[in-house]
Amino acid sequence: MFREKIKVLDCTIRDGGLINNHKFEKRFVREIYKAVSSSGVDYMEIGYKNSKKLFSPDEYGEWKFCDDDVIKEITDGVDSDTRISVMVDVGRVDPDEIRPAAESPVDMIRVASYVKDIDKAIFLVNSFSDKGYETTVNIMAISRALDNELNEALHQLEEESRAEVIYIVDSFGALYQETAEFLVKKYKSILKTKEVGMHAHNHQQLAFSNTIEAIIHDANFVDGTVYGIGRAAGNCPLELLIGFLKNPKFDIRPILDVIAREMIPMREQIEWGYIIPYAISGMFNEHPRSAMALRNSIDKDNYRKFYEALLTQDTE
Amino acid sequence: MFREKIKVLDCTIRDGGLINNHKFEKRFVREIYKAVSSSGVDYMEIGYKNSKKLFSPDEYGEWKFCDDDVIKEITDGVDSDTRISVMVDVGRVDPDEIRPAAESPVDMIRVASYVKDIDKAIFLVNSFSDKGYETTVNIMAISRALDNELNEALHQLEEESRAEVIYIVDSFGALYQETAEFLVKKYKSILKTKEVGMHAHNHQQLAFSNTIEAIIHDANFVDGTVYGIGRAAGNCPLELLIGFLKNPKFDIRPILDVIAREMIPMREQIEWGYIIPYAISGMFNEHPRSAMALRNSIDKDNYRKFYEALLTQDTE
Repeated sequence: MFREKIKVLDCTIRDGGLINNHKFEKRFVREIYKAVSSSGVDYMEIGYKNSKKLFSPDEYGEWKFCDDDVIKEITDGVDSDTRISVMVDVGRVDPDEIRPAAESPVDMIRVASYVKDIDKAIFLVNSFSDKGYETTVNIMAISRALDNELNEALHQLEEESRAEVIYIVDSFGALYQETAEFLVKKYKSILKTKEVGMHAHNHQQLAFSNTIEAIIHDANFVDGTVYGIGRAAGNCPLELLIGFLKNPKFDIRPILDVIAREMIPMREQIEWGYIIPYAISGMFNEHPRSAMALRNSIDKDNYRKFYEALLTQDTE
Repeated sequence: MFREKIKVLDCTIRDGGLINNHKFEKRFVREIYKAVSSSGVDYMEIGYKNSKKLFSPDEYGEWKFCDDDVIKEITDGVDSDTRISVMVDVGRVDPDEIRPAAESPVDMIRVASYVKDIDKAIFLVNSFSDKGYETTVNIMAISRALDNELNEALHQLEEESRAEVIYIVDSFGALYQETAEFLVKKYKSILKTKEVGMHAHNHQQLAFSNTIEAIIHDANFVDGTVYGIGRAAGNCPLELLIGFLKNPKFDIRPILDVIAREMIPMREQIEWGYIIPYAISGMFNEHPRSAMALRNSIDKDNYRKFYEALLTQDTE
């Protein structure tokens, strides 16, 4: 699949940070930055811009805050065309703390929002656009969005926001490719002036295939992470995505090197990937938080108990 | 996806046996048989019927030969509606050694064949059909089949064979869903009187999605293995497939139990799953044998060297 407009965004540090409270060493972050830069990846999302008024730096690592000076320690001196992205969550960022793009190492700000918060997301994204950033809105928990509300949100985004890209975010790893196709087509039909993006989770081993499905139906922004690291089952493996895309600008080899050198040892320390309770969460279209709690408990491999707990939980 | 005609075949022992020379303990095989039976899985493929004239029982375990008496030790006394399948490879079976179905615990024989051997496969499959077995032909290495030769083979199978099902076998884990769709539609258009099956490999984390893709386009026989065990990256995880299929006859819980009890410890002893050299093999549309050899060498995590070896190998 070669389509020059396709842009690949690496969110290894940002989504991976959800496993370890964003406590990656600077050395590791720089290794990832060097690898994705050498591979020709278009964007690297280096963390969240959360406000320190809401979250304590004693509890969380630096990639939850992404101070501009800290980012510069990673990027300075590396030959790179990779643009830097940060994510903000609606309600967790103080927009006044965001400096103009011209004064920042950040190129793109992605606003993560639920459908219900889309007005706030539009307000934020427009304020970042005014400051000179490229912007996206990433609609989370898409597998639970009600059709009429999603339609309205997409129309608002098209008409009121200056975001260049609107993402499908399969937070629960619940989409099968038929629904991925349905959603991309819906997005494309409403968002006439914007690009569509896909951020997939791998609970049911479908992150890569859902990303391919999105590409087939003309999504041009796709997310991956090195060796699929990310919350719970993780994300679409960047190396598979690079292997699939035929754009000659990409070189998979630096990604392969950093997997061998950094990710294989890291996987011994922190857990992500194909793990049964995450698969069950995906089947139930549930947030993986209860599965993540299970994995930190003595019952971590009591899959039946977990399955039956979801089956019988009070949902009315 | 609920379609009553869909039949699920578990090939945990058969494809898993390719990792350990078919040396599973009888206790383990019986645990798998009990689990798939309780889950309502339609078929269990318990191994190969290879001739002992060609392969030595000193070198290989019993599931490479599947003597009827050995199969009965597994199945006797278990309450089950699961039918027993065995696989034979063209050229590796002595058809005279196969007893009539009425005298055997085996219900189905699947003949694995390359496109070039399809005449031999038809001869075999018809001889097994004459003996009263359900039969299938599984066309291996489908990602390298030339279109005109595949068309001819499918026409021959339709016209000359009594096989009930013809399978797509993605031996190299090289298919993306566009090609899976193309192949299922081709099979369906030629095989007017037969069912189409999908046996997917997971080198690029696409076994489950390619199986879904096949189901969407009306394949009614689909293979899976418990926890995805199988040669190299393994197969479509049976538990994901059962989670996807909405037929109320299936119960995922016995599969979850046997994963926790048997497969998690086994995965510590033998290796399968998402492992970078297998992903690279899939990208190159190559048999995984060189990747499997790599994983048994000191270079097992030298992904760049392996990638470059495939990139520069003499292919002319």
